[in-house]
Amino acid sequence: MAETMPRDPYPVRAVFFLSDYGTEDEFAGVVHAVIAARAPGTTVIDLTHSIPPFDVRAGSHTLVRAVPHLGPGVVLGVVDPGVGTARRGIALEVALPSGAPLSFVGPDNGLLVAAAEAAAEAPVAHAVELARPPAQPDRGSTFDGRDLFAPAAAALCTGAALEDLGAPIDPGSLVRLIGGVVEEGRLRDGRACLRTEVTWVDRYGNLQLAATVADARVAGIPLIGRVELAARVDSGPQDPDGLPHSLVPDGMQLRCVDAFGELGQGEFGLLVDANGHLAVVAGEASAAHWLNVAAGELLVLAW
Amino acid sequence: MAETMPRDPYPVRAVFFLSDYGTEDEFAGVVHAVIAARAPGTTVIDLTHSIPPFDVRAGSHTLVRAVPHLGPGVVLGVVDPGVGTARRGIALEVALPSGAPLSFVGPDNGLLVAAAEAAAEAPVAHAVELARPPAQPDRGSTFDGRDLFAPAAAALCTGAALEDLGAPIDPGSLVRLIGGVVEEGRLRDGRACLRTEVTWVDRYGNLQLAATVADARVAGIPLIGRVELAARVDSGPQDPDGLPHSLVPDGMQLRCVDAFGELGQGEFGLLVDANGHLAVVAGEASAAHWLNVAAGELLVLAW
Amino acid sequence: MAETMPRDPYPVRAVFFLSDYGTEDEFAGVVHAVIAARAPGTTVIDLTHSIPPFDVRAGSHTLVRAVPHLGPGVVLGVVDPGVGTARRGIALEVALPSGAPLSFVGPDNGLLVAAAEAAAEAPVAHAVELARPPAQPDRGSTFDGRDLFAPAAAALCTGAALEDLGAPIDPGSLVRLIGGVVEEGRLRDGRACLRTEVTWVDRYGNLQLAATVADARVAGIPLIGRVELAARVDSGPQDPDGLPHSLVPDGMQLRCVDAFGELGQGEFGLLVDANGHLAVVAGEASAAHWLNVAAGELLVLAW
Repeated sequence: MAETMPRDPYPVRAVFFLSDYGTEDEFAGVVHAVIAARAPGTTVIDLTHSIPPFDVRAGSHTLVRAVPHLGPGVVLGVVDPGVGTARRGIALEVALPSGAPLSFVGPDNGLLVAAAEAAAEAPVAHAVELARPPAQPDRGSTFDGRDLFAPAAAALCTGAALEDLGAPIDPGSLVRLIGGVVEEGRLRDGRACLRTEVTWVDRYGNLQLAATVADARVAGIPLIGRVELAARVDSGPQDPDGLPHSLVPDGMQLRCVDAFGELGQGEFGLLVDANGHLAVVAGEASAAHWLNVAAGELLVLAW
Repeated sequence: MAETMPRDPYPVRAVFFLSDYGTEDEFAGVVHAVIAARAPGTTVIDLTHSIPPFDVRAGSHTLVRAVPHLGPGVVLGVVDPGVGTARRGIALEVALPSGAPLSFVGPDNGLLVAAAEAAAEAPVAHAVELARPPAQPDRGSTFDGRDLFAPAAAALCTGAALEDLGAPIDPGSLVRLIGGVVEEGRLRDGRACLRTEVTWVDRYGNLQLAATVADARVAGIPLIGRVELAARVDSGPQDPDGLPHSLVPDGMQLRCVDAFGELGQGEFGLLVDANGHLAVVAGEASAAHWLNVAAGELLVLAW
Repeated sequence: MAETMPRDPYPVRAVFFLSDYGTEDEFAGVVHAVIAARAPGTTVIDLTHSIPPFDVRAGSHTLVRAVPHLGPGVVLGVVDPGVGTARRGIALEVALPSGAPLSFVGPDNGLLVAAAEAAAEAPVAHAVELARPPAQPDRGSTFDGRDLFAPAAAALCTGAALEDLGAPIDPGSLVRLIGGVVEEGRLRDGRACLRTEVTWVDRYGNLQLAATVADARVAGIPLIGRVELAARVDSGPQDPDGLPHSLVPDGMQLRCVDAFGELGQGEFGLLVDANGHLAVVAGEASAAHWLNVAAGELLVLAW
């Protein structure tokens, strides 16, 4: 009983669910049903199920953006191309700045760790490998969201401790993804520039960059006036110092604004978005469409 | 305490959430999380998040259709191209015919007022401008759904009164949209006609018209037998009296029916839909596709 | 009171909702609102609303897959091209293997029966025809999900017995669909084969077959090594014995695996899926796309 005492002030009754299941099929709904049957009364919140299939990196970015706004509960994340193989199922637990616990359940493929550390503003200290329930006869093992992760999340919601779910593992052994590219440099003409990855294209076509407002401050980007956007640099030749040749001499100008509504229709801009990242946007239009840029590409900002 | 007394019989524990956020991203999920953290146990119902980006008018129509079926609670509506600008955030409160309160939270851009008045069957009498919380350091102000509207909705769910959210404003100052077109007239051949706007194309391709069954009654459209659908009139020349030249002489015939299933596959019909509006439909087929008509276009019915 | 006693140990507070309403419109949200207003506190779980419009068969398959994972409650299923016609609205009740009750509410068009019997592992014994509430003035009868089925589901959640919803009907009179094709046979070259229908293409492009692992066992398909996939047989000529001419001599080889991750990227495989059915899949790719196969087509497996 002593172990469960610290959780008492924070009844764990919320599950935050992210996956690449889509909603065309019943995958996400069945996971909801499993949680409802095992932990009645739990609030299950769908963060999104539209992570592109198998895109662990996109799922990780999305969780990192979401966690600062979550209360205590369990993050259930399933983007899992390795389901059924030897990859581990894991559960992590961290303390939110408020002191309340937030747990993470899902595959050990890099999906969860960055978000757990962003939530805690500290390294992960507690992790377990989920013990696998006996396989169901005549059914394949291709739906761990239903068969492994949802039961684990439900158990946490009904008072189980992390260690009840499996054997402790070394947090240092968790699979991690490489972070998004943010590199300072200089163009050949001597101007300072920042080379950074597009980490997310949202529904409106806004391009979120890996660079944060803090990165911009360090790099000295003046977030007033105009900033130049170089042609994107995804596969072209590079200088020996890693900077792109392909910067358009008369690059596109982005107007630095605080709100989408400051831009004329179709005008391109640069703003600090609601997650604290730089974003290339357009007035009531899709910057992604008109610039033909996708997540994972590199952009260069110069000033 | 006296002010909160009237609300006691109607615990406000439901939020009805509509937006243009889509579900591809985590926007809607994060708003759910903010409400769950601040008002645990609230039932948050997604009306839809697929309002076309920035389409305040489509959002307003959707809310007007939904409100007759909502119980007491808070309508949270976010279609907000002006986020971050000087446009106001507002909260409204009306009494449902049952006497129970229904509140509305969102931007002051016309999204909410028509639905509030439809719910109350009366003008809006109580409105406040939402007081803005302090900006978060190093984060942009582009996500009022999360940072302004969700906290306000959660506050209402936990017992706050409307006036606790901000200073009262004159309901007459609220931004309003122009209503859908419904105009009676006569064709050159003398027949009576009704010129009316397509306000909604639903998933099945049904075309909801601005004209209601009451409009049809006033105009004298016989909703039995057949009605003629003129070619659509979106940009063509008009008679001095505002009636279209382009009416197809041998217009398409719509069979008046009570149910989709009365139509043969692909047959076009006219029915009174579940919201009391006239709708141009097709048997197990998309009228929008086969007629190549979109929301916002004008149709002419003649008989 | 005696009749309601058996339900007491299983408070019916969950609704499992499936439809072809999509989520672009407010249809599903309004149904949620009606249930929330009539049965506050009910957990409504969306199985999916993306059943293709009017595709009763796809809806039935989806419910059959989902029911083994549902606890007690009410399945609300609405794929209903006959709405407003003389087709009946029905409610069914079965006992889960646990003894807890699971009810089904929706149209009598074949959508519900197979799932009810799969849930109970027994024939349906209790069915009623839903009594229709009085029509609302000036509104059409095209939204039974909102006006007939949701109120019935809410009534069950608040303690109504099945017989409170309408007059009993003979379960033998319920509309049923024909099951998916699973036929053993021999190719002209003497090899054993199995001719079976694609019943579901999921988000990842996996092709679920009507044949289960039990069917494979009976037919003698060795689920190790490789199995040959014949060209699909949807409309071609057939032998007098019903077997296809069109089997590709050097048919595509499917590697039998237990997990997607065992396949190389784009490699085709055959596995027993999480529902116990055979499935044709591809490594991190869409088998449906690369084989150009859709639900309803027939495939032939040979070995």
